[in-house]
Amino acid sequence: MFIIGELINGMYKDIAKAIASKDKNIIQQKAMAQIKAGADALDVNCGPASSDPVHDIQWLVSSIQEVTDKTLCIDSSKPKVIEAGLKAAKNKTIINSTTADEDKLNILIPLAKQYKAKIIGLTISKKGIPQNKDQRLELAALILGFAQEQGLSPDDIFLDPIVMPVNVAQAQMRDILDSIKEFKIISEPAPKTVVGLSNVSQGASQRGLINRTFLVMAAANGLDAAILDPLDNDLMDAAITSDLVLNKQIYCDSYLNAYRKK
Amino acid sequence: MFIIGELINGMYKDIAKAIASKDKNIIQQKAMAQIKAGADALDVNCGPASSDPVHDIQWLVSSIQEVTDKTLCIDSSKPKVIEAGLKAAKNKTIINSTTADEDKLNILIPLAKQYKAKIIGLTISKKGIPQNKDQRLELAALILGFAQEQGLSPDDIFLDPIVMPVNVAQAQMRDILDSIKEFKIISEPAPKTVVGLSNVSQGASQRGLINRTFLVMAAANGLDAAILDPLDNDLMDAAITSDLVLNKQIYCDSYLNAYRKK
Repeated sequence: MFIIGELINGMYKDIAKAIASKDKNIIQQKAMAQIKAGADALDVNCGPASSDPVHDIQWLVSSIQEVTDKTLCIDSSKPKVIEAGLKAAKNKTIINSTTADEDKLNILIPLAKQYKAKIIGLTISKKGIPQNKDQRLELAALILGFAQEQGLSPDDIFLDPIVMPVNVAQAQMRDILDSIKEFKIISEPAPKTVVGLSNVSQGASQRGLINRTFLVMAAANGLDAAILDPLDNDLMDAAITSDLVLNKQIYCDSYLNAYRKK
Repeated sequence: MFIIGELINGMYKDIAKAIASKDKNIIQQKAMAQIKAGADALDVNCGPASSDPVHDIQWLVSSIQEVTDKTLCIDSSKPKVIEAGLKAAKNKTIINSTTADEDKLNILIPLAKQYKAKIIGLTISKKGIPQNKDQRLELAALILGFAQEQGLSPDDIFLDPIVMPVNVAQAQMRDILDSIKEFKIISEPAPKTVVGLSNVSQGASQRGLINRTFLVMAAANGLDAAILDPLDNDLMDAAITSDLVLNKQIYCDSYLNAYRKK
């Protein structure tokens, strides 16, 4: 499982404060803590409170790059903020994210190509959140088709089925899991798949338990990557053990530690 | 998930001792503890040390039936012990188990029919443990075909893919998981599926974590039932949350407790 740490996000108070005061130690510590816990990449998002996100994302990217060369996942709903983050990045990058809307695809797919970035494609559009697997597959095919026309390879695309909270969309969970499996056979080479995990337990009790149960099920269905909190030790144990059961990491008695030190 | 509690088994010292001294309180306490933890059925096995398993299984069945009417899973490799257990049972029963060998099927399938018992069919034969999914499916089809000829319905059969330890057969895990999914589409009505869970972590470190990760993956693949330790609280939480994610139990904030009290 390719783990994208979610904690450098201005929606968290400590990060918002660090951005406001340009305290790069906080950011760098959060970066290294996530990497030590097993993160393969770091999501970077200025958050809603940033008054100058173009500048802030560049500051975040530069600050993080002083301490790690891990992949950065440039996260914004604003294409110009994403472009600023890509410009500042010397590390590998993933654009987070485009929707299946043409106005977004028209800007972000060329940016992905220009900056040799991978890109997360949310199977969502202005028409709303898909309500079933067929709608998800339709939007996935649209994103993939568009990206391939522009010269991106399917395995540069991380398709995201849009995970809904289990307490409001329980009947959709199986469809979401099945979508992950079907995304993988939509093209050759296969696209990658990703979920923003924490949404599944939004508003629920037992958040950790629901998060890791859903993650293990998604892994069984072929999930490649997840945006999550790598400091949740039980969650990381579940992700690592999923890789073990699926034969993606060779068994040894100390496999949990071996993975984190990889 | 239909939970079959595994703890009334003479391979455990406390149970072996209770059988030897005919201390039914120990047996009844173990029965009730498993039911309180969420077990839907109780496996009953005299264990290897029993000198008179025909008598002992009847004593076990009678002792348990004094305190519960939950389904009993009559567990022995000896057909005459199974028959003795079935004779003593007034509760619903499951025969645990037949292999895909004709000499076993010839005795146990008629017994299942005679005693209106369900039956676990291990996809294993005298030729050995299957090494891939195709071999598992072949043995599953053989068991199902035989049972249907004798007038059993496929949904009276629990097919068991034979779970191997992850530390010796890691490359087979995905095949075992896929087998569960494919067993479900082998006939109409679909057969049920079951695993003897603890084998997956035999000899491994992190047994609990590996058990619950495999169980959640198997659940995502359509597993109906598992023989496991219901007193492993984390494992039961994982099983219950699997049912939640798969929309088999309606969400409420106290869903863990609600399940156990069902």
